[in-house]
Amino acid sequence: MPVLMIGVLCAAVVLAIGIVIGHFGINNSSAPSWLNDVAKDVDESLIEKFLAEVDTIHIQENLRELTDVPHMATTPGDEKTVQTMLRRWQDADTGLDDAWREEYNVYLSFPDPNNPNKVTVANTVQHSIREREKAYTSDQDDPEVVQPYAAYSPAGHAKGKLVYANQGKPSDYEQLSQTLNLTGTIAITRYGGAGRGAKAINAAPYGVVGVLVYTDPLDINDGLMSDTNETYPHSWYMPPSGVERGSFNRDFGDLLTPYLAAKEETYRIPPENIVGIPPIPIQPIGFEDAYILICALGGDAAPSEWQGAFNCTYNYGGPGFKPTSDDVKMDIYNKEVIKNSANVMGVIRGSVEPDRYVIYGNHRDSWVHGAIDPSSGTSVMLEITRVLGRMVKQGIWRPRRSIIFGSWGAEEFGLIGSAEYTEQYFAKLSERTIAYINVDIAVFANATLRASAMPSLQNVIFKASKEVNAPGESSTSVYEAWKLHSNRTSPTHGVIPRLGYLTGAGSDYAAFVHYLGISSIDMSYTYDRVIKLLWCILILFIYNNLKTNARIYPAYHTAYDTFDYASKYIDPGFVSHQAVARTAGNILIRLADSLLLPFNCSDYAEILEDYLNTAVTLYQQQLEAHKISIGKCKTATDVFGDKITLSHLSLCVFILRPLKVRRINDQLMLLDRAFLDPLAFPDKYAFRHVIWTSSSAGKATFPGLADAFAQAESSGLDSDWDKVHYHLSVVSQAIEGAASTLADVI
Amino acid sequence: MPVLMIGVLCAAVVLAIGIVIGHFGINNSSAPSWLNDVAKDVDESLIEKFLAEVDTIHIQENLRELTDVPHMATTPGDEKTVQTMLRRWQDADTGLDDAWREEYNVYLSFPDPNNPNKVTVANTVQHSIREREKAYTSDQDDPEVVQPYAAYSPAGHAKGKLVYANQGKPSDYEQLSQTLNLTGTIAITRYGGAGRGAKAINAAPYGVVGVLVYTDPLDINDGLMSDTNETYPHSWYMPPSGVERGSFNRDFGDLLTPYLAAKEETYRIPPENIVGIPPIPIQPIGFEDAYILICALGGDAAPSEWQGAFNCTYNYGGPGFKPTSDDVKMDIYNKEVIKNSANVMGVIRGSVEPDRYVIYGNHRDSWVHGAIDPSSGTSVMLEITRVLGRMVKQGIWRPRRSIIFGSWGAEEFGLIGSAEYTEQYFAKLSERTIAYINVDIAVFANATLRASAMPSLQNVIFKASKEVNAPGESSTSVYEAWKLHSNRTSPTHGVIPRLGYLTGAGSDYAAFVHYLGISSIDMSYTYDRVIKLLWCILILFIYNNLKTNARIYPAYHTAYDTFDYASKYIDPGFVSHQAVARTAGNILIRLADSLLLPFNCSDYAEILEDYLNTAVTLYQQQLEAHKISIGKCKTATDVFGDKITLSHLSLCVFILRPLKVRRINDQLMLLDRAFLDPLAFPDKYAFRHVIWTSSSAGKATFPGLADAFAQAESSGLDSDWDKVHYHLSVVSQAIEGAASTLADVI
Repeated sequence: MPVLMIGVLCAAVVLAIGIVIGHFGINNSSAPSWLNDVAKDVDESLIEKFLAEVDTIHIQENLRELTDVPHMATTPGDEKTVQTMLRRWQDADTGLDDAWREEYNVYLSFPDPNNPNKVTVANTVQHSIREREKAYTSDQDDPEVVQPYAAYSPAGHAKGKLVYANQGKPSDYEQLSQTLNLTGTIAITRYGGAGRGAKAINAAPYGVVGVLVYTDPLDINDGLMSDTNETYPHSWYMPPSGVERGSFNRDFGDLLTPYLAAKEETYRIPPENIVGIPPIPIQPIGFEDAYILICALGGDAAPSEWQGAFNCTYNYGGPGFKPTSDDVKMDIYNKEVIKNSANVMGVIRGSVEPDRYVIYGNHRDSWVHGAIDPSSGTSVMLEITRVLGRMVKQGIWRPRRSIIFGSWGAEEFGLIGSAEYTEQYFAKLSERTIAYINVDIAVFANATLRASAMPSLQNVIFKASKEVNAPGESSTSVYEAWKLHSNRTSPTHGVIPRLGYLTGAGSDYAAFVHYLGISSIDMSYTYDRVIKLLWCILILFIYNNLKTNARIYPAYHTAYDTFDYASKYIDPGFVSHQAVARTAGNILIRLADSLLLPFNCSDYAEILEDYLNTAVTLYQQQLEAHKISIGKCKTATDVFGDKITLSHLSLCVFILRPLKVRRINDQLMLLDRAFLDPLAFPDKYAFRHVIWTSSSAGKATFPGLADAFAQAESSGLDSDWDKVHYHLSVVSQAIEGAASTLADVI
Repeated sequence: MPVLMIGVLCAAVVLAIGIVIGHFGINNSSAPSWLNDVAKDVDESLIEKFLAEVDTIHIQENLRELTDVPHMATTPGDEKTVQTMLRRWQDADTGLDDAWREEYNVYLSFPDPNNPNKVTVANTVQHSIREREKAYTSDQDDPEVVQPYAAYSPAGHAKGKLVYANQGKPSDYEQLSQTLNLTGTIAITRYGGAGRGAKAINAAPYGVVGVLVYTDPLDINDGLMSDTNETYPHSWYMPPSGVERGSFNRDFGDLLTPYLAAKEETYRIPPENIVGIPPIPIQPIGFEDAYILICALGGDAAPSEWQGAFNCTYNYGGPGFKPTSDDVKMDIYNKEVIKNSANVMGVIRGSVEPDRYVIYGNHRDSWVHGAIDPSSGTSVMLEITRVLGRMVKQGIWRPRRSIIFGSWGAEEFGLIGSAEYTEQYFAKLSERTIAYINVDIAVFANATLRASAMPSLQNVIFKASKEVNAPGESSTSVYEAWKLHSNRTSPTHGVIPRLGYLTGAGSDYAAFVHYLGISSIDMSYTYDRVIKLLWCILILFIYNNLKTNARIYPAYHTAYDTFDYASKYIDPGFVSHQAVARTAGNILIRLADSLLLPFNCSDYAEILEDYLNTAVTLYQQQLEAHKISIGKCKTATDVFGDKITLSHLSLCVFILRPLKVRRINDQLMLLDRAFLDPLAFPDKYAFRHVIWTSSSAGKATFPGLADAFAQAESSGLDSDWDKVHYHLSVVSQAIEGAASTLADVI
């Protein structure tokens, strides 16, 4: 039916309605019933009901079911979890309005089960690195446990003298090469300090032919090593044979289809054109084997910062071992393959503004059983959808806006499922998404909430976390515990919990934040890290929290990340899972139901001012010396702050008029979109948000400016100072543009 | 006041309002008065009033005032027009709600008034090209008439033998170089066939050191040449000394600040990094001088397609002249300078949806007096704002949506004012703009309307043009005259006027269409060109229209484009101006006031299907031979058509609910945004719309695909076939994405 005909029909209807309205106006008749819905705000009693119904046993049983077998992306175990998600979300009593699977054909990398990767010491020593982690429970015996490997490491055979290269940073290889000729060597590195793939990428220019990577007990086990009484199953620490698997690519999303959803007929770049993956073979190993290799190394002693927890001196390597001239030999048989990976999507339709989406997501795929990563998050998501789904099915609630749940596939290989989803639905998601909430690993530990988000969402996170009890507590809120563990002093709010920034690409929020510019939250319960001395004993006494210097929970990406491990050592009783489910669910309901979106732009302005002040302090002098003025950036940031006040002062009187509320909500929803520049960072795949893009300069200021400044300061080249000026103009224009979206609309 | 506090205050207000609503609901009280406004549709009687008030005398007097002096960008004459616009738009009785100037510091190129560009024949002949056009009225005597020149031609001195290079296309130089060694020569070319700057860019690789360009009487004057009785002031034809000035850059927007608004502190690229400007001096001359030069050339006769209207054979050149060895010498003194250029902006605030913009614009700057280009359009715009402004000031009308008027600066130098505006306000304009209407040259001639637009706007253009009488007619509409002169057969609508596509960057619509993806219209009254033989005599008899083969109206960019010229030869009585003002204003009011936006997406689907069918016909066989499937593109196009029906069928019943109307209008407004891809055309500045981007392949199908196909077919390289596949995926994903924005929102 052409729109023209519809137009004619509608004209008649409108005329009739016009008459009815006129009649109402004149005769003092009743207001249309939909006005009640349109003006409805969030229902606090419903949030209380939600909080009361979130249940630890359900979360525990979710986790048990999800971690029954290994569920690495695209394996039969992964398909089993797809079926679980669909069954739950399609349940007649507790399911969502609709749920379906959405598939992409994505480029993955696996070891060959028939031809395992091998690392051996050739000639005299004849040591072979173990190919499977040691079994302590039946979980590790599952034949579907994938051999530890480095996804996207090329297959190949490398042989050479071993050298120790610390964390495989550029500076590590640089320093090592001043002592040794690295050509033809194999470097052993420890996790940390540099990205996984970077350890091989940084090595190749020095002629290194292969790289090993292991987790030093110093970095993961607070120094402990013995599996007779110190490591899992005796504690949460990594057993000596444990190996962190991982994806060794730099960019996120399917590597063959940049900016295009990876469907069957989609154009794929030739694999040799992929950038950011290891150019030489790399293989992760356990510290049991690393101990033997490193303690046998000859050559000079490495510097003290390079030393780990082994009871021997870490030498650079002779190159190679002390008494022998044995080579280390790597035989890597990884295979790249295009496979079908599924997202599972579920929705609750909004009643008043179905065209506004709040998206909540987590990945579904793990490396092995993935009890913590990611199934803790999936268990939480399933509990949230159970409670919300039941309220919908019972007819006691329907959100004002639509809620979309995403159970992403193939995250472990580079956030692939979520990235492909954002590529496929770019326009629709950009135009309509209020916010994205990511809960990947829901619980690392049980000490405190950790949340990162755009500053405009700080307010709703605080609000929700104040209404949830800290795990196992009845009088302390998640908010209070958080503030105790990690805080800062805000000029407006005083001492408040410290909200992190989403500057990286550590989980599925990346495409939403950086590619789409959607206001996002990533949250979890986590460790006690930065205890101030004064509080230390008190907190230890009160909370008995796990305190550690581990990089991450020790079973991360190993075969020990199991239900047994999670329920014994990470969150006994699942009370931290419950606290996360309650907090995230509370935020979700507020974003979906609030008449006026609970965004606070003043908090955004505060951070922009912080960034500006840091830039002025660090850079202004040298900028002026290069005739670059920071004035416009300053003006833009000031105007941004001013516009917020202007824009919202006139709010109250208009609150009832639906199009006026919508107008203000649109300003809030689209604020982060105004910070996007698709051309500002040509070397960083899908990074477009000029405030939050990743930065290597390590300064709490505008990232493009910071990185350009570091480069110009180092090179001194005029062309590099031009880039500093360029990035200053980019960020100034973005802030000015964002400010103009907050101002009076005309 | 922080938003938190506002939130608390508002909560109280909302509660109170909630109680009031509850009360209304229960007690059957009156509907809120704003419901009337919200549900109001376009008022046809108001459109009739508008049409009746658009007046030829006002337009004539606008034009007289605007063309009083030359008003090239940033000159005192330009400032005078700025003041005119501000005075009109700030008028207490007929002005807008607000008007202001907005300035940019832009990179322009001018000749040196103290040191005019010179072209001479050295040695024996001693001919010098004239530096000013001959005066026939006092207008040409104005000292502010700028010497004819090629903006952005480098300054420099070139000397060499003259050769004739036809239109300066790549194939022209290629053909010429097969006969002659072009190294060190100066090429004379005629306008047409290639872009202005391209004539020099194409020449440089052959060693050509300078280029002249002129307008052949064949291309502009239907062959006529004599100013004793044939050319202006005896007719509309170009006098022998007339010279077409112009901008010789390829890309639009300020050349030093790509993607950044050109403010004082903005980063500027080094001028040597500008691409797309002439690498060698180029200068335009009149055909009076070209005649002397060309008819003196030696060498072989050029082919018949190269021959123009001169009564001599156009030879290639000896190189150089027949009997002598005289060189042609060019002394070009153009200077680049950064100057302040102003847009003048005016607004009428919307009553119901002030955050939705309909933008209407035209440039204000001319090359000389610019009576046709652009002041015909500005005169029309001022008449539209006078009539609308008066209705606003009288309190009898306020549009539902906001209307923004833009009087752009420095268009002649490369659409600079409008491009900088879209760069500065990118986010706001993308999010809120319903449509952009461009009326640059309002009247080229008085035969027929010519309109180009996104196909979704065809419907409203037809509707408006049916309600306006053709110039000087009382029973024939603009629509009917248009259909008579230029039509096509649509599968849905039968025989209808032919709407053009906005694939180029010929006027200020470019940034709106290509950079922002805003549904746009460009329109004017124009020549009678493509008369079918059967109708020819009849039409001549009835309409007595000007019929011509001229590339464009002959005074274009010359000192003869004056009020005298316009009022005598282009539109005596200003009836065509009036018809354009009525049609454009009618469209403007409908876009601003319609409850449901008057967009017809089925018409978009029809064109996409046309494009697809053309691609299948032209390419499918060879695509399949290269294992590239067009299937997904076909599916996407089909789905696009289907979604339209789905989306709008359910419209009528919901028409009254403001948020449902807004939802559908958002779908319509944002449709073109879904076709943007900022990375698909890296070599074309600011071209992002994958359906309408410029194409050199000359096929009525998807431009990226067409250009890639032409390249692959020519080179046969696998990497070029990869690009074909890439562009097919890009357009498929864009259409699929656009379709998903039209589907049910969740």
